[in-house]
Amino acid sequence: MSSHHIVRDKQEPALLIANGESCQPELLGQLLEWSPFVVVLDSAIWRVLDLGIKVDVLLGDFDRDLDLDTIRAQQYPLEIVHTPDQNKTDLEKGIEYLIEQGYPAVNIIWATGRRADHSITNMTNIVRYKDQIKIVMLDDHSKIFPLVGHFEKWYQAGTPISLIPVGTVTGVDSEGLTYNLRQDTLSIGYRTSSSNEAAEDGFVRLRAQTGDLLIMECWD
Amino acid sequence: MSSHHIVRDKQEPALLIANGESCQPELLGQLLEWSPFVVVLDSAIWRVLDLGIKVDVLLGDFDRDLDLDTIRAQQYPLEIVHTPDQNKTDLEKGIEYLIEQGYPAVNIIWATGRRADHSITNMTNIVRYKDQIKIVMLDDHSKIFPLVGHFEKWYQAGTPISLIPVGTVTGVDSEGLTYNLRQDTLSIGYRTSSSNEAAEDGFVRLRAQTGDLLIMECWD
Repeated sequence: MSSHHIVRDKQEPALLIANGESCQPELLGQLLEWSPFVVVLDSAIWRVLDLGIKVDVLLGDFDRDLDLDTIRAQQYPLEIVHTPDQNKTDLEKGIEYLIEQGYPAVNIIWATGRRADHSITNMTNIVRYKDQIKIVMLDDHSKIFPLVGHFEKWYQAGTPISLIPVGTVTGVDSEGLTYNLRQDTLSIGYRTSSSNEAAEDGFVRLRAQTGDLLIMECWD
Repeated sequence: MSSHHIVRDKQEPALLIANGESCQPELLGQLLEWSPFVVVLDSAIWRVLDLGIKVDVLLGDFDRDLDLDTIRAQQYPLEIVHTPDQNKTDLEKGIEYLIEQGYPAVNIIWATGRRADHSITNMTNIVRYKDQIKIVMLDDHSKIFPLVGHFEKWYQAGTPISLIPVGTVTGVDSEGLTYNLRQDTLSIGYRTSSSNEAAEDGFVRLRAQTGDLLIMECWD
């Protein structure tokens, strides 16, 4: 096993590296410190190998004929999980693999940017797993996570917070935002609460009655 | 008026430059050839001025104190439209301005990438204007447009085509795709038709009964 397998009981979040735009090395480095178990999706493996990162699992349908022998030679030991299901994206397969393995949390990077279809699908599909695993998606400008139950977090005044409904979300209540919501209904494409912000130094609280809400902390 | 105002009757699409990630100069150059009327959103103006592009309208809430005198000095004549409404994004204001001005079509660039909240809001909010103006959003990896009525276009075999519902879309029928849909219901976050493709050289046809569907042509 790799030397960074110091955490054996899966208390730390896994790190899932998808195939969108690469993030800055600083973000990757911070996450690697907290994520001893690293899963890479399909052809992102080449960019990951170039960075000299120790990978635990390579997962994908490998429909572009990856040279698995070369990859194995560079990364030993490496578990290779072949997931040919065409009805699921690689990201969905990666999340489901981590749920099966018993991980309680996952940080996801390289899942945004580049192709718009992958980007929007990756951002929104995480909601279907929100009750099974704690998911945070990160890039150089964004931290994205689904609302699960009641949300409460301390923010500095002016911190941008966007509420993006995946479909329709009813009964949205907030405290601590500049534009608070009171039993509001949000609907993607028509009524969101993008570019809201923490009103003052203090707690922001959120809840919703039905539907899937993404909370996004973003910065320029 | 600027020298490229050769088309006076608004037959060509306007070009709307938003404040996300810049695209490659080639894409911008191609669009400028077809879009004689250029609208820039808020602080994107600095990046646009650096590129030496002639701008017709600068539009925004200017809440970051843009130095409008300096901008005017670099771009004369330039119409400056102040849109302080906090309930709308700059992109929405830009589209509504073009509808008011009578433009039948708009190409939108720099609306994706960087902040995830802006990116997903920009991509999905275009559907609300689909019956008022023809909208195409472009970046270096994607061409995004809403389904309006019946869609029919010739594609080369294997061209990636993704169908992304903004909310729920019912009664989706397709012809010419590798994974065709038959009276299908698509729902964002749960069931999309991302990473579909043209089955062969020929026409792809799409229609839907209710809801807002985004068609995305994307490439790596």
